[in-house]
Amino acid sequence: MPPTNPARRRALTDAAIELVAASGAHGLTHRAVEQAAGLPTGTASNYYRSREALLVATAERIVELHLADMEQAADRHETPADLAGLLTESLLTAATTLRTRYLAIFELQLEATRRPALASALAGLQDASTRFTVGHHQGLGLAVPPERVPVLIALYGGALFTLVTAPPEHIGREAVESIVDAMIHGALPQSNNGRSHH
Amino acid sequence: MPPTNPARRRALTDAAIELVAASGAHGLTHRAVEQAAGLPTGTASNYYRSREALLVATAERIVELHLADMEQAADRHETPADLAGLLTESLLTAATTLRTRYLAIFELQLEATRRPALASALAGLQDASTRFTVGHHQGLGLAVPPERVPVLIALYGGALFTLVTAPPEHIGREAVESIVDAMIHGALPQSNNGRSHH
Repeated sequence: MPPTNPARRRALTDAAIELVAASGAHGLTHRAVEQAAGLPTGTASNYYRSREALLVATAERIVELHLADMEQAADRHETPADLAGLLTESLLTAATTLRTRYLAIFELQLEATRRPALASALAGLQDASTRFTVGHHQGLGLAVPPERVPVLIALYGGALFTLVTAPPEHIGREAVESIVDAMIHGALPQSNNGRSHH
Repeated sequence: MPPTNPARRRALTDAAIELVAASGAHGLTHRAVEQAAGLPTGTASNYYRSREALLVATAERIVELHLADMEQAADRHETPADLAGLLTESLLTAATTLRTRYLAIFELQLEATRRPALASALAGLQDASTRFTVGHHQGLGLAVPPERVPVLIALYGGALFTLVTAPPEHIGREAVESIVDAMIHGALPQSNNGRSHH
């Protein structure tokens, strides 16, 4: 039975997030993780038997941190919240303060195209995240129909990829507001977005 | 002066695209590329002195292929084209038939966060792509204001990341149409997307 010290588990996976962002999924090894966490040789393989288990645990830790941040953000907002404001704060923080974390999840998503076990773990996390977001929106009193949440998450994730891979000096509130406006209202100006043809 | 046989250059960079998609940016080495292209040892370093030059050439080849495909698509369409139809065909082909190519460019975008020279090459390609798209839309008679093209490209690139990293069995015309509809009209249904509050 693997050891279950939760603080040590967090120390290992937090170090893993930094490593993946800094060196790519390829840079994530048991040895590198325990060194980065300042833990003795062998610690990482006591917790995670294979490299795949380590990759999956890193993805799970990122989603855990992401959901915890969403909950905190929910607590700070009055209801009914403003969807544009919520998405702007969330994307801006994700692309700046938390850039490393989201660079790591995108590395893992690409690695998952080569590793079915990681892909299936990420799919499970995606489902949990969708359910959480639906509940989160309802808790905030946002009028986002549950069936639109997956496409909103797809645009959010995609926009975040674009932001974290852009030169950091390009990432400001204005750029993020413009993307969020496009996510909610469409990329074309209202008078010009083809609705009249429908 | 490096050799200039264009067919050999294409053979090397086309092999490089496959390699990056299959093994990540880390898998791209001179030796692996010339082996994959069936060319003698030393060929790749005759053309590309450094690994960075090889990474940049791979990105350039992807953008060259992308722009050539956009031109072909333009030739096939009657004007004025339908933006939703254009984006749906383009995203669907990119996420299925050409999935390898776009997996490779996303690997390179993440690698660029660790390599300023690659980042600056990609930024140049991004600018060229934006200018091309503006001209392309005008040529097709599409009423996309040039200042909205960058945000449309950001959503397109982001949506494509989401699609190529999703399980391939999830990628069908319906999923793509739903994302394109959200890109153009916004992620929320029209009666419910917050416009009334503005």
